[in-house]
Amino acid sequence: MRVLILGIDGYIGWTLAQRLVSKGHDVYGADNFFTRRRVKEVGSESVLPIPQMSKRLTGFKDFYGKDVGFFRGNVADPKFMYRIMEQVGPDAIYHLAEQRSAPYSMIGLKQANETMVSNIVSTMNLVYASKDLNPDVHIIKLGTMGEYGTPNIDITEGFIEVEFRGRKDTMPFPRNAGSWYHWSKVHDSNNLMFANRLWKLKITDIMQGVVYGTATKEIEVSRLFTRFDIDEVWGTALNRFVAQAIAGLPITPYGRGNQKRGFLSLEDSVTCLSIALEKPPGEGEYRILNQFDQYYSVNFLAETVKEAYEKVTGMKAEIKHVENPRVEAEDHYYNPDHRKLQELGYRPSGELKKDVERMISDLMDHRERCVNLRSVIMPKTFWKRSSGI
Amino acid sequence: MRVLILGIDGYIGWTLAQRLVSKGHDVYGADNFFTRRRVKEVGSESVLPIPQMSKRLTGFKDFYGKDVGFFRGNVADPKFMYRIMEQVGPDAIYHLAEQRSAPYSMIGLKQANETMVSNIVSTMNLVYASKDLNPDVHIIKLGTMGEYGTPNIDITEGFIEVEFRGRKDTMPFPRNAGSWYHWSKVHDSNNLMFANRLWKLKITDIMQGVVYGTATKEIEVSRLFTRFDIDEVWGTALNRFVAQAIAGLPITPYGRGNQKRGFLSLEDSVTCLSIALEKPPGEGEYRILNQFDQYYSVNFLAETVKEAYEKVTGMKAEIKHVENPRVEAEDHYYNPDHRKLQELGYRPSGELKKDVERMISDLMDHRERCVNLRSVIMPKTFWKRSSGI
Repeated sequence: MRVLILGIDGYIGWTLAQRLVSKGHDVYGADNFFTRRRVKEVGSESVLPIPQMSKRLTGFKDFYGKDVGFFRGNVADPKFMYRIMEQVGPDAIYHLAEQRSAPYSMIGLKQANETMVSNIVSTMNLVYASKDLNPDVHIIKLGTMGEYGTPNIDITEGFIEVEFRGRKDTMPFPRNAGSWYHWSKVHDSNNLMFANRLWKLKITDIMQGVVYGTATKEIEVSRLFTRFDIDEVWGTALNRFVAQAIAGLPITPYGRGNQKRGFLSLEDSVTCLSIALEKPPGEGEYRILNQFDQYYSVNFLAETVKEAYEKVTGMKAEIKHVENPRVEAEDHYYNPDHRKLQELGYRPSGELKKDVERMISDLMDHRERCVNLRSVIMPKTFWKRSSGI
Repeated sequence: MRVLILGIDGYIGWTLAQRLVSKGHDVYGADNFFTRRRVKEVGSESVLPIPQMSKRLTGFKDFYGKDVGFFRGNVADPKFMYRIMEQVGPDAIYHLAEQRSAPYSMIGLKQANETMVSNIVSTMNLVYASKDLNPDVHIIKLGTMGEYGTPNIDITEGFIEVEFRGRKDTMPFPRNAGSWYHWSKVHDSNNLMFANRLWKLKITDIMQGVVYGTATKEIEVSRLFTRFDIDEVWGTALNRFVAQAIAGLPITPYGRGNQKRGFLSLEDSVTCLSIALEKPPGEGEYRILNQFDQYYSVNFLAETVKEAYEKVTGMKAEIKHVENPRVEAEDHYYNPDHRKLQELGYRPSGELKKDVERMISDLMDHRERCVNLRSVIMPKTFWKRSSGI
């Protein structure tokens, strides 16, 4: 299939490109290097060194023997979106090109508005370009499990049958997100659902858990690494814990650490994303998939990283609870469904403990880089302190 | 109280200013004349003639003996929002300054994005400016009953107790809007709910029904009329039906006309809005009020207008169903709660039939203007045909 990846320079985008080309698909990609620039702005960088896009593309061609058609530009610009839709004429489009950091969106009003606007507008451009130029395209859009929040009932996959005052309806699962970033994804999901109602676009909306890991089976061989962020703005929970241990910092659960979230490895993320492609929804269907392997408490993850680090390196790691910079429940019920991807054939590839040991080995090669970033690892972005101009 | 009305030049804003000043409040207002400009763009104008703001303000001062402090600017500009928040230091702010037309938002991608961005950003600016400069201010934000859509269960006032697989939670009522405009209001409501969770801002989020009418008890005396739009983009159902009859056009329910919606008169709208001010929510509360008098089917409204027109003028009116330009259910269950405003003291002021007769009398004075706008009254903006650049 002809596949267009919006956000191909990102953590998942670059990994997914390798998976898809390995499976025989023709891969095109777009990026405006937003994440690279913004990561620099907070004084950080990817711990796994990543070359410039031109070098990435040459390396890709050398290893896989196939070109990636690359377009530099911003998908929040309608002209750019229409142009690439027209030039590529894809069978499927992955939209991974949104601002993807919760802390970034909570720095202040400027970043909050930027997140709202660029994320929402990019998805609006995508559905209009699809409708106008390519109405049969399969849109695969990355959302987040964080859209649901932590309700006191089981979380379904997007829709819930509600019985109320003796009547019934199947309704969108009520969302209750925890940052402007997460809300922007809720707004996207709502807009996608409506675009499907308007024009019968074929859409898979993925509620993804937190992704961890340094490599996939393709990257292990190609050595064409993807980015790996560990700072407080751009790094995510498990990846940051590993980096903290390696940098000689304490592993820091936020608050009491009983928050539970769904997680999956980078390997499983691209597996699920290619299942979504190869087992598309029906014509005119809007499908929501909850995409994660298992859910864990933050405390359990901290313990797992500590043990793995001590086992792999023979050195000690420490766990230290810090003030929670977020506004979130620290003790809550959590039981999200995640059956649909399994029904489509997803089987988890690994085991958390092994995965974490693997990450530690990979990152120990870059220990100096982790140490150099110590000053940007600890939380500085506090939700309650977010303020304006 | 010191009250700031964002969108004071609008249909409700200008009316509310008169109500509030009559009740002894100090009124400040802001507007960027967006609606005036956009109404001109579709070749239309307010059927009730409205003077320039400078003349409006002079007239206001002459009649009420009190100045309105007016600021010209765009609340989607954070600097402007912060400046007026600082200069006025209000006890309460009404946010009526959003793009308010569903058809406008469905013209094409440009208008869809403009609606999303300006509405969402204005509300974001408002909550940040409140948090930073005036955290005790009472934010009264205009949303719409259209946020809920037409579910097959009763619609509560914002939150619903869900029982699912043996567990319970009180959750946001699942929204399912019917245009980009209505979705932008859903996104606002979600963002307001989150701003309240973050910073305990005191917020009343009003889910308002469709407003009809030409005057309130203040306007009947002051003759300082508010705008009245009848074209297919800026006019709303009942107001347009009245204008169609007066212009000698058929009254046109969309599709089968069994769509039901909540309605209230302009008089009742400003009554409810002042109740929201004078009976504020508790400290740190996010309160949702469903604001309408009764719900009617579109067919019932068409019949009501026809009968009233024939009674008042002695001339014949015709009802003609036209292709529905919208994507909406035409036969559906509809039973929204609207108890809270009644508990706070709201009593409907009139009776639909009398209100409509009154509107017809008022508008017959401007029959020529209605006739001149005949070409912009019939629907041209079709949801399914909305397209991009």
